Amino acid sequence: MTSYQPTARTVPTRYRERARYDCATVHGILDEALICHVGYVNDGRPVVLPTTHVRLDEVLYLHGSTGSGPMLTAAASPDGLPVCVTVTLVDGLVLARSAMHHSLEFRSVVAVGAARLVQDPDEKRRALAALLDHVASGRSDDTRPPNARELAATAVLALDLVEVSAKVRTGGPVDDAEDIGLPHWAGVVPLTLNAGTPVAADDLDAAIPLPSYLTPYRRT
Amino acid sequence: MTSYQPTARTVPTRYRERARYDCATVHGILDEALICHVGYVNDGRPVVLPTTHVRLDEVLYLHGSTGSGPMLTAAASPDGLPVCVTVTLVDGLVLARSAMHHSLEFRSVVAVGAARLVQDPDEKRRALAALLDHVASGRSDDTRPPNARELAATAVLALDLVEVSAKVRTGGPVDDAEDIGLPHWAGVVPLTLNAGTPVAADDLDAAIPLPSYLTPYRRT
Repeated sequence: MTSYQPTARTVPTRYRERARYDCATVHGILDEALICHVGYVNDGRPVVLPTTHVRLDEVLYLHGSTGSGPMLTAAASPDGLPVCVTVTLVDGLVLARSAMHHSLEFRSVVAVGAARLVQDPDEKRRALAALLDHVASGRSDDTRPPNARELAATAVLALDLVEVSAKVRTGGPVDDAEDIGLPHWAGVVPLTLNAGTPVAADDLDAAIPLPSYLTPYRRT
Repeated sequence: MTSYQPTARTVPTRYRERARYDCATVHGILDEALICHVGYVNDGRPVVLPTTHVRLDEVLYLHGSTGSGPMLTAAASPDGLPVCVTVTLVDGLVLARSAMHHSLEFRSVVAVGAARLVQDPDEKRRALAALLDHVASGRSDDTRPPNARELAATAVLALDLVEVSAKVRTGGPVDDAEDIGLPHWAGVVPLTLNAGTPVAADDLDAAIPLPSYLTPYRRT
């Protein structure tokens, strides 16, 4: 598969030319973004929470305490929990001469569907390790893995990547022709997420060096 | 008012000690974050979209095309559109010796309620100017304001800040005592959003200088 099939729920009502359905674009955004925002419905009301995620092939995994809101709601949803998982990378401010044409440079993904609670212990361990490696590549091999008690306290949600779209806006402002001569600065302010110098825990043995995956730390 | 009243929907099920209800903390997070994720329910399914926001006193404003999904849904909701607006700032990675105690340093706000479509033209203009100033402070006075056609094509949603909470996690990893001696690096990797050098539009008159609000550009 190289592309997702557009559906009524993944075709935007506005700026359709910004929509992307190719797997490479979608995967790139999901993999680069540190966190997502997951939405679900509780008692008819929307709930949106930030959390980390990871993609393994065509499955998106989220995790949380078995006692958390989304996991309790998922446990009470035998056909899966309808979710909308949205990931957004902001790459810059777009300042136009007119208020109307201000925008952001961004890359986003929206994935919808019914998420299932992972029951298989092997899949659960694999997903939890991958969630850690999504935060810092290689970290799952350089940490104490979850024990039975910790595994039992953690729930993992899996969303198959089927109804998925990306939206990408790049480039400078597009002003109306009659506004080009106005005396307002126009252009792009690039924004990047930067990692600072790692700060060791107070109780860390000074003989333990910084691991290679933090020197430097990069999202791409 | 110095603090929001906790409700069943704004008391987290987990890590209650991380919850904050004071206005100063909530306002600081809303004002610093460039974008939010707004969740609403469409045909019983959750939808989560990224957008910019602005706070004016105790009202949170969002905007969009009158033809966009949330605005069409709001227009069809006479009692207001139930929304969940979530804002998240990620301040760092928290690497613990155990997989279980990995976390992020973050500051988030969740605001819920029924959002109303702004009808008053003055309130709408004020909100749109503030949305611009939220992106770059002072920009609304240094741009061509929206004309009647642009105003008619833009909808503004207002959410009163009543059911609101923040969640804040700071500091290094908290490992179980028996894990402290494990040979894994532990600590925090700070993350910051940085603005690069502004890039002028190709068609910008070279005599127009960079405005003061971009030299430098800062979110705080």
